[in-house]
Amino acid sequence: MQNYKFIISYDGTRYHGWEKKPGIDTIQGKIEGVLNRMVGADGDNEVNLIGAGRTDAGVHARAMTASALLETKLSEAQIQEYMNTYLPEDISINEVKVCSDRFHARYNAIGKTYRYTCWYGASKPVFDRKYVTVLESEPDVDRMREAARFLVGEHDFKSFCGNPKMKKSTVRNVDVINIEKTGNYIRFYFHGNGFLQNMVRILTGTLLEVGYGNISPEQVMDILNACDRKLAGPTARPEGLCMMKVDY
Amino acid sequence: MQNYKFIISYDGTRYHGWEKKPGIDTIQGKIEGVLNRMVGADGDNEVNLIGAGRTDAGVHARAMTASALLETKLSEAQIQEYMNTYLPEDISINEVKVCSDRFHARYNAIGKTYRYTCWYGASKPVFDRKYVTVLESEPDVDRMREAARFLVGEHDFKSFCGNPKMKKSTVRNVDVINIEKTGNYIRFYFHGNGFLQNMVRILTGTLLEVGYGNISPEQVMDILNACDRKLAGPTARPEGLCMMKVDY
Repeated sequence: MQNYKFIISYDGTRYHGWEKKPGIDTIQGKIEGVLNRMVGADGDNEVNLIGAGRTDAGVHARAMTASALLETKLSEAQIQEYMNTYLPEDISINEVKVCSDRFHARYNAIGKTYRYTCWYGASKPVFDRKYVTVLESEPDVDRMREAARFLVGEHDFKSFCGNPKMKKSTVRNVDVINIEKTGNYIRFYFHGNGFLQNMVRILTGTLLEVGYGNISPEQVMDILNACDRKLAGPTARPEGLCMMKVDY
Repeated sequence: MQNYKFIISYDGTRYHGWEKKPGIDTIQGKIEGVLNRMVGADGDNEVNLIGAGRTDAGVHARAMTASALLETKLSEAQIQEYMNTYLPEDISINEVKVCSDRFHARYNAIGKTYRYTCWYGASKPVFDRKYVTVLESEPDVDRMREAARFLVGEHDFKSFCGNPKMKKSTVRNVDVINIEKTGNYIRFYFHGNGFLQNMVRILTGTLLEVGYGNISPEQVMDILNACDRKLAGPTARPEGLCMMKVDY
């Protein structure tokens, strides 16, 4: 058995998220299926693919990182070719590398970058319509940037956690929130040591409320301090979200 | 009645080309349907939308130009909003402008730019898989550029015409063929005063044959001079082709 690290892109549109669920199309399920076939696994020695994180249904990834122990004589390049041949066209294996047995894609991740892409305008984003969230009108980017400054840093992000039963710590360190406007696109970049369930989407949904004038930038500090999901904005739609990078 | 000019983007994947055909989804058919509804046309006064060109099934456009005479009290912005609301998400009206009654989107076009996008690599182009043609391996771009020099200029392009029954002149002036390589993408840009049926795809298919060493760059001159479609390369797949701009 040898441990392998994978860098994976996927268009999440057709999938019910990363995490394997019986009888439902998921990214983890699809990839494990192909790996099981590749190594000739039967019920006893099925491959367990560990992802750096679990993206929600409809969320995309440019560089999800995952690891798995495999028993195979194929080279890294042959494994990649096999996987890309048998995986559907909306999942791509960009890199396969032998790695230390101690490497664990989830536990060893020390940082993650997410991008949330919005679009607004009188026309329509025909060519990337599956990868942007269409806004009704232009939000005030300066106001959103002002609000974002209150969110950067190590905080208890309980107000921005989509799991009401979360028992573990909801403290995370978000060291970057950049908001870039290019033409009709507004892109939010988030970097942190970890993100809670739906956290990037709730942060984006809240910042958009600020951008539309429904919440003041200063109120975002109160929302953060309240540790109450009900006070934050809505969970922004999944299609605008993309996992960009995992740091180790 | 007032003449209007439209700039239109579309993802051609789901459509049987631009040109209206009864009972089949086409771009012209979809847009005329929405315009007929907008002006309340009955059988007698249906809208006739004139496109600058007729793209093939599966071919895309970033700025197709079209014109139509309409009887409406709506403003340009209201027409655009109506059309974008009722058209599907893979067709976008980017601009609506009142224009001279004499303007004719096809007859007045003096130049067109097309782009053909290829991709190759060990991974897969997940996010633009509908808009690129995936190549098995990397073609020799320098060889293709050398061959392209023989094609630039005013020539009889009969060897590159997909319509064997073409009765009209097959002489066209192609003043630009640029081939750009960026990462795993190879993009062919064509500009000319007009293009024959399938011409851009046959030119691309022939250049790729040169890139793979199956045709020498000099042979392309012989193919051009022979005025015989059988000597040129295959018609490249539609998904890589996009109409970029129409000049008036």
